[in-house]
Amino acid sequence: MNMQRRHGAVLGDGLSGTRCLVLGAGGFIGLNLCRALLRAGAAVHGYGRPPAWPGALPDLRWTQAEFGDTAALGAALEGAEVVFHLLGGSVPAAAERDPAADLRINGVASVELLGLCRAAGVRRMVFVSSGGTVYGVPRILPIPEDHPTDPISAYGIHKLLVEKHLGLLAHRHGLHSVVLRAANPYGPFQSPDRGQGVIAALIARRLAGMPVEVWGDGQVVRDFLHVEDLVAAMLRAAVHAGEERLFNVGSGTGRSILDVVASVDAMLGLRGAEIHHHPARPVDVPVNVLDISRIRRVLGWAPRTDWMAGLRGTAEWLRGVLPARQGALVRR
Amino acid sequence: MNMQRRHGAVLGDGLSGTRCLVLGAGGFIGLNLCRALLRAGAAVHGYGRPPAWPGALPDLRWTQAEFGDTAALGAALEGAEVVFHLLGGSVPAAAERDPAADLRINGVASVELLGLCRAAGVRRMVFVSSGGTVYGVPRILPIPEDHPTDPISAYGIHKLLVEKHLGLLAHRHGLHSVVLRAANPYGPFQSPDRGQGVIAALIARRLAGMPVEVWGDGQVVRDFLHVEDLVAAMLRAAVHAGEERLFNVGSGTGRSILDVVASVDAMLGLRGAEIHHHPARPVDVPVNVLDISRIRRVLGWAPRTDWMAGLRGTAEWLRGVLPARQGALVRR
Repeated sequence: MNMQRRHGAVLGDGLSGTRCLVLGAGGFIGLNLCRALLRAGAAVHGYGRPPAWPGALPDLRWTQAEFGDTAALGAALEGAEVVFHLLGGSVPAAAERDPAADLRINGVASVELLGLCRAAGVRRMVFVSSGGTVYGVPRILPIPEDHPTDPISAYGIHKLLVEKHLGLLAHRHGLHSVVLRAANPYGPFQSPDRGQGVIAALIARRLAGMPVEVWGDGQVVRDFLHVEDLVAAMLRAAVHAGEERLFNVGSGTGRSILDVVASVDAMLGLRGAEIHHHPARPVDVPVNVLDISRIRRVLGWAPRTDWMAGLRGTAEWLRGVLPARQGALVRR
Repeated sequence: MNMQRRHGAVLGDGLSGTRCLVLGAGGFIGLNLCRALLRAGAAVHGYGRPPAWPGALPDLRWTQAEFGDTAALGAALEGAEVVFHLLGGSVPAAAERDPAADLRINGVASVELLGLCRAAGVRRMVFVSSGGTVYGVPRILPIPEDHPTDPISAYGIHKLLVEKHLGLLAHRHGLHSVVLRAANPYGPFQSPDRGQGVIAALIARRLAGMPVEVWGDGQVVRDFLHVEDLVAAMLRAAVHAGEERLFNVGSGTGRSILDVVASVDAMLGLRGAEIHHHPARPVDVPVNVLDISRIRRVLGWAPRTDWMAGLRGTAEWLRGVLPARQGALVRR
């Protein structure tokens, strides 16, 4: 791997021929990442549950197994040069209902996974953490990486737990890792019905002529990042050899949920979305916008996707897959 | 409870008649805490494993049960006004051998305990965290509470995990808690043979005419806090009603292990301790001294125990109990 070139690098530069293991390859980010890695010429091995979208999985080496299957994991880790850790199982709402269960199932499995990586001699990892939850209620905006981390959700705490164990492995065992604290990703392959992914849900419901659902007054502000931009950051992180190991990845722009509804309507040429308001969720911070100056400076990365173009691409993808998914919208 | 008076308060002021539950009451800190609470007139209920020292348990309501016994815990929590959380099971070395197991056993049990506290309607908790491990390698000295938390031990990470869950409960459910990041406590009731508590181990071995054991070159610097001072901070924390919920508790003074050996010899009137050096442990940070200006200012607390007097008291206590503990010194 070429660890030297960073600035001005072509996407995926330095990954050609590199044996990359993607844990959680069947998920939203995983599918996008696998495609980008294949385009970059990497030898990609996907691991995880089957993808939610038939035919979405590109042509790659594939192990279908659960997170907790240590035998399958151990075999997959053998010879992997870079491991992308996207496993995590839960969505925020599930973690909230039973924090101890989320810790027992997802937290423990994640720490066990790190132990397996160490035992297998893995040298590099990229972990996608949650820039939207690890900081808690922001004291300053945009939020820099050295902001205090006081999550108001169990989901955020357990992402932080994995970050800390990665730090320990780096310090004690020289297992180099990069943590990307990602903003709210959106784009193709995001399910509109998993309780995570507000943009996919909004577009899908507008396409179906259904009212949109908003928790609280819709003034909650989020930082929406196109998944292609997130994946580009992950490819840079995979060949990053510098000291800095923690980066925010976001668009740098805050948008309220009502702004997003208006943008979606403008993109679809619709007007007057009917909004069903549900009670605000205590797990939601009022605002989250990430300071992305560190990743710009150190990895030479910047968000590239135009907001309206990103929404359009998401809508096109949803138009293609939704007819095959009966009931996808009511389960959200 | 009188929540108003803080400065210049008598030790335990405001706790008379308060129903206090001490989880982990049979341990080193727990035994000292129970005695102080009883002196302050609190209604004390101790919970935990039997104390290591026969006869050490004062006359109090006592539930002998394991950490994970949710039925016994639920019953104990009923009606408790203040809960002191000293359970944690592991010592640093055990957590290090298998971080995932430590998380599965101690981390999960701790988070389950917090869920039980919330369900039982507990309003106040005091948690003793680890000022010696949560910060990791210090970037500045003494270490203030807003120093980054990058532990280099699983023990430290899992203390931090509990801190974060306490923060979530405070934010989301109004369960008020105070976190005390304690320096290295020493004093009566500390076992010389558990792999934690270097002062007890040093004194016990010198009393027995045995060589002392030092990991590394003995230049590692620690902040040693007499347990009576820690307990005084816990009593203040129990009646603290202010916004600030996180405090370092230390002596404010750093001492190397070799300094401690010299102090112990001076206190015992001995000379020329034979030192057996073992390899340095990667889990040990090179130096740890806590900045205690916040707790001085906000809780009006200060360390009171003179260093040599503290060592003398510890030696007197050890002289009284060691003859009954065959093999206590070789197991360290």
